[in-house]
Amino acid sequence: SFFIDWDLSMAERGGYPHFMLKEIHEQGGVCRSTLKGRISGGSVDLSGELSMDEHTMISFRAVHLIACGTSYYASLIAERIFERWTDLDVKVDIASEYRYRDSKITPDTLVVFVSQSGETADTLAAQRKARACGAYCLAVTNVQGSTLARCCDDVLLLKAGPEIGVAATKTFMGQITALYLLAMYIAKVRGTFPIERESELIDELLQIPYKIETVLEREHLIEELASKFAFSQNFLYLGRGISFPVALEGALKLKEISYIHAEAYAAGEMKHGPIALIDPNVPVVVVAPKDSLYEKTLSNIQEAKARHAPIIAVGFDGDERLASDADHVLCVPPTLEEFSPFVTVVPLQLFAYHVAKKRGCEIDKPRNLAKSVTVE
Amino acid sequence: SFFIDWDLSMAERGGYPHFMLKEIHEQGGVCRSTLKGRISGGSVDLSGELSMDEHTMISFRAVHLIACGTSYYASLIAERIFERWTDLDVKVDIASEYRYRDSKITPDTLVVFVSQSGETADTLAAQRKARACGAYCLAVTNVQGSTLARCCDDVLLLKAGPEIGVAATKTFMGQITALYLLAMYIAKVRGTFPIERESELIDELLQIPYKIETVLEREHLIEELASKFAFSQNFLYLGRGISFPVALEGALKLKEISYIHAEAYAAGEMKHGPIALIDPNVPVVVVAPKDSLYEKTLSNIQEAKARHAPIIAVGFDGDERLASDADHVLCVPPTLEEFSPFVTVVPLQLFAYHVAKKRGCEIDKPRNLAKSVTVE
Repeated sequence: SFFIDWDLSMAERGGYPHFMLKEIHEQGGVCRSTLKGRISGGSVDLSGELSMDEHTMISFRAVHLIACGTSYYASLIAERIFERWTDLDVKVDIASEYRYRDSKITPDTLVVFVSQSGETADTLAAQRKARACGAYCLAVTNVQGSTLARCCDDVLLLKAGPEIGVAATKTFMGQITALYLLAMYIAKVRGTFPIERESELIDELLQIPYKIETVLEREHLIEELASKFAFSQNFLYLGRGISFPVALEGALKLKEISYIHAEAYAAGEMKHGPIALIDPNVPVVVVAPKDSLYEKTLSNIQEAKARHAPIIAVGFDGDERLASDADHVLCVPPTLEEFSPFVTVVPLQLFAYHVAKKRGCEIDKPRNLAKSVTVE
Repeated sequence: SFFIDWDLSMAERGGYPHFMLKEIHEQGGVCRSTLKGRISGGSVDLSGELSMDEHTMISFRAVHLIACGTSYYASLIAERIFERWTDLDVKVDIASEYRYRDSKITPDTLVVFVSQSGETADTLAAQRKARACGAYCLAVTNVQGSTLARCCDDVLLLKAGPEIGVAATKTFMGQITALYLLAMYIAKVRGTFPIERESELIDELLQIPYKIETVLEREHLIEELASKFAFSQNFLYLGRGISFPVALEGALKLKEISYIHAEAYAAGEMKHGPIALIDPNVPVVVVAPKDSLYEKTLSNIQEAKARHAPIIAVGFDGDERLASDADHVLCVPPTLEEFSPFVTVVPLQLFAYHVAKKRGCEIDKPRNLAKSVTVE
């Protein structure tokens, strides 16, 4: 019976040694299924599944995105997208903070609750508060019949399938996909979406699943790099703009499964304190896609290098300057500025996975952590 | 001449071994001078120094607080105060992020820029952006003739005197004092201030400098505790609500001057990842004043304890439960919920100072750091 169990569980993991790795490799597919049926005629259309009508969407004054952990970092990415495409006041908050504070929540506030399980206790409590203030509540979740889905006015599902690994990966991918679609849809209805860029943006969004799969094919390079740094004690992760939440998520993955103290900072904040930590024993991981903040990020790399930190950068294919400035580069296929998190987060997930594996950690069930935090 | 230099510099430091320690000890006075002349007849009145009139203040739709480093954490405290006392949409952002993103900035947005020196490059650039969007710009700074002060529509000075230590302490105290006065003043003009609590709040605010001085008298207890933990490699700092930014500031001080990797988290987020880091070698510092979130914070202490982390708590005098739950308590005089950061931050500054001293670090000029970050 021991052998049968083992066979079964290997089968469940689709031949991968851990659920986490299997789920990382499913991310192209998750992105693809979350997009499926939601883009028609070259445009996002969620009118078939969301009950909010045009009038409601136009009446919104603000959007709040509320979540915990990895879902909070997905929300921070979406914050930048909502700011860019809509004219709404955008606020993101940790559910355990939002539920107790006095943020202005009104009937013309759309509050989006992001929770993989739809059972996160603090997120549910935040939803009750927003409901009591008369806000329009929308759930972005992986579980259709979850408490959160049942309590909200609307539900947008990520089509990620069950996630077994405690450290979220494919549901993060599903969350950002769903949130981008939501931002695009609301922006379009409100007339704030850059319509002249619509076909360019939609075409690229449809390419994203393939680009994710391209990154996954490079796993062996990431594994090699992970061997070099598996026994570092502290890491700093840096990113600017839309890459800042990617850095936060990359650092969280490393913390969760390898127990290495990795901390992320907005790259521009480095000189305001964390640079004091830097020495040759503290690798600095920099998320540096070639976007409008690229030059500023390169100059942060220079500063960290001047203090002799080993630099691991995530950047676009063919970026020679980055290759010469950083000690190691994990390359991803180039994409539009707006979409870089979809590809830049993947090497960071794989890096965390392989570091944890080299350290012999129990990857699918890290110490002290539960898959869904259903107590406060 | 060596000896004369030494004497002079000792004299400049008022007999303290470091400027930082001298400046920590000046904080009661800084709070007192920043309040002085701004409260009259039991009410905050800034009409003598601010040029914004009643009509302007009533027309504001949102307030943004923009800063870097320690000033950013002061702004995060003020965020909660503005949310509590006003009906404005409140947003806080890091200057190096705000300047490049698409936040909604309109002529009815008050943008408050917080910078000790008034010369922080990213903050100045953020001000130019807000100005271009037609926002009303207000500087909260320690330097009257600074670039920031000259570029803004209004200036509110902290009366902290020159700060020499690179790690900001007394200017943080001056900043929060000025920001509380500003929030109170705007709230009162807009008619959203809880007027039935005005005398209670003002009376307590006037007591704060004395309470800060009470904490300072307990330095020897904090020094003793610092000896116990001076050689720990990693720290976690936790706090909820208004104590979360206090935890962030406490962790930053330790990072800056002792080069220990200290990271702060909103206590409710601990279970969503960072709890994986906890083991008997990672002390957890918890900011736990007896406020409306106290019970929740105590339950986070229990969770960290269950993973055998040594717990250092900052709490109110006479809190027996905290004393029995935590391994070590740094006590501060009780105050109203709104004002707890003024007293809870002080033991964390002293703790960082004494840890750095035990480790033989160069306290007033930590490696890699400059006093004002005048490049991007």
